[in-house]
Amino acid sequence: MAAIGATPDGGVTRLALTAEERRAMDLVRGWMEEMGLETRRDAVGNLFGAWRPAGVQGAPVMTGSHVDSVPHGGRYDGTAGVVTALAAVRALQQAGHVPSRPIEIAVFTGEEASRFPVGLLGSTAVTRGLTEEELDRVDAGGVRLRDALPDPAGLDAARIPPGGVAAFLEVHIEQGRVLEDAGVPVGVVTGIAGPAFFRGWLRGAADHAGATPMPLRRDALAGAAEFVLAAEQIARSTGPTTVATVGWLRPHPGAGNVIPGLCEFSLDLRDIDLDTRDRAEAALREALAGIAARRGLEWGLEETHRVDPVTVPGWLVDVLERVAAEAGVPTIRLPSGAAHDAMMMARVAPSGMLFVRCRDGRSHTPEEYAAVEDLTAAADVLAGALAMLTAEEAVGASG
Amino acid sequence: MAAIGATPDGGVTRLALTAEERRAMDLVRGWMEEMGLETRRDAVGNLFGAWRPAGVQGAPVMTGSHVDSVPHGGRYDGTAGVVTALAAVRALQQAGHVPSRPIEIAVFTGEEASRFPVGLLGSTAVTRGLTEEELDRVDAGGVRLRDALPDPAGLDAARIPPGGVAAFLEVHIEQGRVLEDAGVPVGVVTGIAGPAFFRGWLRGAADHAGATPMPLRRDALAGAAEFVLAAEQIARSTGPTTVATVGWLRPHPGAGNVIPGLCEFSLDLRDIDLDTRDRAEAALREALAGIAARRGLEWGLEETHRVDPVTVPGWLVDVLERVAAEAGVPTIRLPSGAAHDAMMMARVAPSGMLFVRCRDGRSHTPEEYAAVEDLTAAADVLAGALAMLTAEEAVGASG
Repeated sequence: MAAIGATPDGGVTRLALTAEERRAMDLVRGWMEEMGLETRRDAVGNLFGAWRPAGVQGAPVMTGSHVDSVPHGGRYDGTAGVVTALAAVRALQQAGHVPSRPIEIAVFTGEEASRFPVGLLGSTAVTRGLTEEELDRVDAGGVRLRDALPDPAGLDAARIPPGGVAAFLEVHIEQGRVLEDAGVPVGVVTGIAGPAFFRGWLRGAADHAGATPMPLRRDALAGAAEFVLAAEQIARSTGPTTVATVGWLRPHPGAGNVIPGLCEFSLDLRDIDLDTRDRAEAALREALAGIAARRGLEWGLEETHRVDPVTVPGWLVDVLERVAAEAGVPTIRLPSGAAHDAMMMARVAPSGMLFVRCRDGRSHTPEEYAAVEDLTAAADVLAGALAMLTAEEAVGASG
Repeated sequence: MAAIGATPDGGVTRLALTAEERRAMDLVRGWMEEMGLETRRDAVGNLFGAWRPAGVQGAPVMTGSHVDSVPHGGRYDGTAGVVTALAAVRALQQAGHVPSRPIEIAVFTGEEASRFPVGLLGSTAVTRGLTEEELDRVDAGGVRLRDALPDPAGLDAARIPPGGVAAFLEVHIEQGRVLEDAGVPVGVVTGIAGPAFFRGWLRGAADHAGATPMPLRRDALAGAAEFVLAAEQIARSTGPTTVATVGWLRPHPGAGNVIPGLCEFSLDLRDIDLDTRDRAEAALREALAGIAARRGLEWGLEETHRVDPVTVPGWLVDVLERVAAEAGVPTIRLPSGAAHDAMMMARVAPSGMLFVRCRDGRSHTPEEYAAVEDLTAAADVLAGALAMLTAEEAVGASG
């Protein structure tokens, strides 16, 4: 798999809806067929492989992830979730498990927004659906998304109907250092953080850095510096799943000997709980207003993007922890700060995630690495969970 | 004067050693000659006009400033010091004052570094001298400074010999809001701040803004934000003449959803007292090292420019305050944060400055404005000081 779209630096480049992604999907499709799965490719380009032993009916329990990557990305992001899904299903087949409902492996197309500016492409298409505006977006070469799809006319039919999936599970590398720091191979995700992005600004007066004594200044950068630290403090004090980041910050005019009269900055706020995120957002606005008032500055904070967080149902977290304990795999609970296909699948089915420890938390780079032992442990937990969810009446109570 | 190099927005553009600067100097030269002054232009392009009544000998007391401007600059910066010098000398002539030594008005060329990257050009040429490297610097059109000078071969002869000037006084608009805030028209400058410029950086880890909990971050921008506030606090607590400014700051990679792994920033530190500036610099380095240590960051702070401050001799401050009091002009003492020709003249003669209140502290812009009443008050104080310094034996004790 790592040879498809391989880059000289040891990474991979497999962009959405390119020949490289298609070759990776075809490789998976071959493996699926060797395992006796019924395969199909849908209108947006997603690949599905269903294990449906004779006489087994009903909405499937689904698991999977994606095989596309960012440019010069790593070998594990997405692919780890597809490979562990294949391994888990094969283990169940070899163990003689007879599922009470089908188990289907999904390989979603275009999870990364690197080619078309639409992330979670395949999982969005089958759940929320794509908007006309999204379908008209173009890649760097001017190709429209709709023209890159295998069957744009079939998008409506590709939507998962109500009750069409009984539950969804996704294994993914953590892309952070929480598991590494805790010394455990696998994490049970409790929720997927919803991002709220903002563009902020503070305006003061651009005065001469030599001729303006400190008490007479209205320094927009100093105000922004206070806000950067306030954001850090508010995120820390709001809760363990709250993160706030100022990733860029631009003082104007940006000359060494001029006090900045204007400072623009970004704010990235996430939490797995909507109320908690709302509370943090209110505190951030209050902090910015207070800084501006004390320093005699004008201010603004405009939302640029907002997605609600997803909470993993407690019973699904319990299932994952129980089977991990039975398999002897140590786990901790943690939130997902990044978005994943499971975030879209949560719109149509109870959805959970397992994270795999990744070295130094590095991701989206050729240095991305997860140990085969940790991936195997995650596959064991996934197999146990799939078995439990396809035992008689397992998902019946919940969906 | 304001018509020469006038811009449509009400300002002026008179760059160093251009036809516009020359026309402005020629206008001043005509006024000097009407007043009976002996005029000369030196090798770098400075204009001098000496009032040397019959039988009066010795090193002159000198006063003046410049008539060049930044692009789209104001009508008062520099020109105010030349016009008040002319007004003061004419007032002494009309009052029947007989100076004990000559009084010479100087119009230095190229005070602004806008055309050639050499500020204080004319006053540097006659005091410290220009270096070969400086003479080789070029303007935006590729013209070398040495080729733009009226007589590059005569630069050595243009230097002021030891004891060649008895004292120097310069009137200049404040370019800050201290006088306006204090409600006084004229300020007596106690020293000219020496600038020390630095380029600093902090390095942490560029991690995913969603997937990295707050306690695991090594955010270079958050560290830099602490430093911006530390610089503000250290300048405030070191002394009333200390200023510290972070004018630009660049987080990397500078994406909204990536924790900045590197942050570069400028630091502009000034004080009129060298020991005080050294103390502030030590505190700033200690603060940066402490921030880096607490946050697990690497750091650096490299000097890019350093000029020693100038202290105005106490007796000269006393003279200026005494004559202001006699003339009924309210004054306060204040430092000069910006550099001026008097800074270079201080290398060869006791040098003092008077600041004139300017509206909103605005300078280097067409909105620059000083009231004619305030300029007149400064000319009155300057005339009184010139009279006192050219009374019998006045400057003898000091030089």
